[in-house]
Amino acid sequence: MANDKKMVEQITSMDEDFAKWYTDICKKAELIDYTSVKGCMVIRPYGYAIWELIQKNLDTRFKETGHENVYMPMFIPESLLNKEKEHVEGFAPEVAWVTHGGSEPLTERICVRPTSETLFCEHYANVVKSYRDLPKLYNQWCSVVRWEKTTRPFLRSREFLWQEGHTIHATADEAKEETIRMLNCYADFHEQDLAIPVIKGRKTESDKFAGAEATYAIEALMHDGKALQAGTSHYFGDGFAKAFDIKYTDKENKLVHPFQTSWGVTTRMIGGLIMTHGDNNGLVLPPAVAPIQVVIIPVQQQKEGVLDAAYALRDRLKGQFRVKVDDSDNSPGWKFSEYEMKGVPLRIEIGPRDIADNKCVTVQRHNREKNFDSLENIEQVVADRLEEVRQGMYEKALANRTARTYACTSIDEIKDALANNGEGFVKAMWCGEEACEDQVKDATGVASRCIPFEQEQLSDRCVCCGKPAKHMVYWAIAY
Amino acid sequence: MANDKKMVEQITSMDEDFAKWYTDICKKAELIDYTSVKGCMVIRPYGYAIWELIQKNLDTRFKETGHENVYMPMFIPESLLNKEKEHVEGFAPEVAWVTHGGSEPLTERICVRPTSETLFCEHYANVVKSYRDLPKLYNQWCSVVRWEKTTRPFLRSREFLWQEGHTIHATADEAKEETIRMLNCYADFHEQDLAIPVIKGRKTESDKFAGAEATYAIEALMHDGKALQAGTSHYFGDGFAKAFDIKYTDKENKLVHPFQTSWGVTTRMIGGLIMTHGDNNGLVLPPAVAPIQVVIIPVQQQKEGVLDAAYALRDRLKGQFRVKVDDSDNSPGWKFSEYEMKGVPLRIEIGPRDIADNKCVTVQRHNREKNFDSLENIEQVVADRLEEVRQGMYEKALANRTARTYACTSIDEIKDALANNGEGFVKAMWCGEEACEDQVKDATGVASRCIPFEQEQLSDRCVCCGKPAKHMVYWAIAY
Repeated sequence: MANDKKMVEQITSMDEDFAKWYTDICKKAELIDYTSVKGCMVIRPYGYAIWELIQKNLDTRFKETGHENVYMPMFIPESLLNKEKEHVEGFAPEVAWVTHGGSEPLTERICVRPTSETLFCEHYANVVKSYRDLPKLYNQWCSVVRWEKTTRPFLRSREFLWQEGHTIHATADEAKEETIRMLNCYADFHEQDLAIPVIKGRKTESDKFAGAEATYAIEALMHDGKALQAGTSHYFGDGFAKAFDIKYTDKENKLVHPFQTSWGVTTRMIGGLIMTHGDNNGLVLPPAVAPIQVVIIPVQQQKEGVLDAAYALRDRLKGQFRVKVDDSDNSPGWKFSEYEMKGVPLRIEIGPRDIADNKCVTVQRHNREKNFDSLENIEQVVADRLEEVRQGMYEKALANRTARTYACTSIDEIKDALANNGEGFVKAMWCGEEACEDQVKDATGVASRCIPFEQEQLSDRCVCCGKPAKHMVYWAIAY
Repeated sequence: MANDKKMVEQITSMDEDFAKWYTDICKKAELIDYTSVKGCMVIRPYGYAIWELIQKNLDTRFKETGHENVYMPMFIPESLLNKEKEHVEGFAPEVAWVTHGGSEPLTERICVRPTSETLFCEHYANVVKSYRDLPKLYNQWCSVVRWEKTTRPFLRSREFLWQEGHTIHATADEAKEETIRMLNCYADFHEQDLAIPVIKGRKTESDKFAGAEATYAIEALMHDGKALQAGTSHYFGDGFAKAFDIKYTDKENKLVHPFQTSWGVTTRMIGGLIMTHGDNNGLVLPPAVAPIQVVIIPVQQQKEGVLDAAYALRDRLKGQFRVKVDDSDNSPGWKFSEYEMKGVPLRIEIGPRDIADNKCVTVQRHNREKNFDSLENIEQVVADRLEEVRQGMYEKALANRTARTYACTSIDEIKDALANNGEGFVKAMWCGEEACEDQVKDATGVASRCIPFEQEQLSDRCVCCGKPAKHMVYWAIAY
């Protein structure tokens, strides 16, 4: 296994330098390449294949709940962006401005969309006239641009890929239901398919989306104890409808404003996968989004019958799984570490002795557990092993989160917990005042992440000011 | 059928004003909406569903031939765009320039990609080092921007959706093969799935892609006799590789330049579908890309058993086809014209008498042919009817092209043919000189579309100068 060690040495240890470990994986697992466009990246075939699987899974979920895809322009004229006051204040400082078409200056500058509420609103004002036109449940897959100062692959880049759902409803209740439905959709996708446990909750006032009445989020804890906001869902009330003059005739023949939502997840989820599941051997992918779910490595492949057995095994599995045989002339050891780096959830080794015994060796990526499995019923065995991987990955991530979640009732307890146990989620009571929110952050470094739906009564006092507490809040240092 | 007439009156007749008929269909079939972003459009759910079906079909074809998807930045720094001389000259006049990020001016302006050769080349220079790294067969689905002066939905817009394949090969022969393979892929997709007959050929020198050694195209003839370039495939030789310093070590351990291709099709194909197949009742969609392939219209739906029979029929068909029951309280006549406008290939009417007879009425959209079909084996009947539609649509389009293709041996013959028979394809011999190409256009209005692979010897003299002819060329007025 000399080659194996060599591969492993190529990436920085996560305990030594987590940030460098992260970018090493992005590069060595061939997820991305840098470009001469500052803050933008190439998503390479292996990285993009993960995104395609994420897209396909979510798109199916969206369509099953009645959503339709559309495509809006990538540009927003400045005057359109300016229509909703809070919205423009939130986004204008970080948009890219187009000022020239060819050699001609534009009469009005246009920005590259940082998000598309304004465009959807303009369209809804055109097409929503009667209660019969409602609801409209639209989604868009596209890229957006936010001119960030510091960038990191997947986590924060000037351009990123995402989906943005934009819906419009006759009543506030319907819109609120939609907001929560889609938050639950994201949570379910993360927990079931990405094997990432998440906290569902509401953002505090200071952390709301620009123009929203309420912002909900799912928050995940990364291996290093930092939090990642993994998806958001916003309830807009009728604020945008008023700003964009969207009105419809209701059943009583009155002209009224409808209610709106928006919700999105991004390529940032790939960063979340890396930092939740990855280890010092590279990426670890959950089966649902692994471009290769099973890699078959022939052992002593020059011996008669070995490659044929590997191909026969592949042919048995390929209808059900994304499976690959690596029959290249690299050594088995090289191949083992290559597919560990790529995070392939299940490796099957098959050599002359295995073939004689009608067996193979299966190795699970996330815990390196090795089993001698019969080839008799290998389709079912592989399905079972992959399900074990999915569950095992989820439990491992949950164990990390549990070990790194600290219930605290004073600022000093927060400081101690972080100092003694490392970064993580802090659960603490809060009075609801922004001043206390700021003070907790200044004193301890952790910021409010969300007011979780699952509330606990840790005490009846705000962790900061000692006045009566309104909510339990999750706090953390976030990506 | 009073309602039917009313719907039909809503669109301009194609014989009266083809351009207005076209935009009427775009709007009334709910394919697009206009926006305040000049030259950009909203692709509405029905239009986008067509695009998704096109994407899925082509993406499967690309992957079956070994291509992988990637994502490149949407921005190109000016210095990168400038690296290949012909390429920048071709595109710089029509790019959108970003000059500011937030409130800060950029140190170097960047353009929104009009096409991504430069970005792919930069990436290939990073990752192609050895003959073992070749070929790379990459594709990207994205939107691009070209700052056009005059725009029309789908046909010419400032932003459009497309795929751009970019491949890099060890040898010129391999790259040339790839260029033709993908042209054939486009042609097959158009003829088999879009039911649009196409001419495959090479562009003349004056009409090549900026930076290409050779450009190939498929050309289709629209209902009005104008040509539409429906897809292009370019062979670059090693020109880009030299400009971007892409080198690899070959098997003899020499450092050499690789060879490249690119190829693309766009949302323009939706414009091609409208103008090839559409009629005065609206859109006509081929089954392969119809979001609804079969619409079931209950007749006398208030009578007992009618809606149940319609739902039962839907349930029998839905595993195999994209099928919808319209059980709204609109009249059958209104529904007939609604789904004719939307171009649904097959309508099934089912009423009390049909149910009693274990029959239904099927109506094919493209020729309005009506059949009384048994419900006994309706799954197979629907499959057969849809195949008839596909073939019928292709033959109808081919008949239009044949009737509007004129073989001419003199400028006067071209003028006469166009004057007497209307716009169409002109086949005429050409000496290969750009001067003659220009002169034909000036004298007759038709421009060279391509030098078709299937050559005919109409005469041995150039239609313009009378000198020895090198090629037969297709000429037309193009969109």
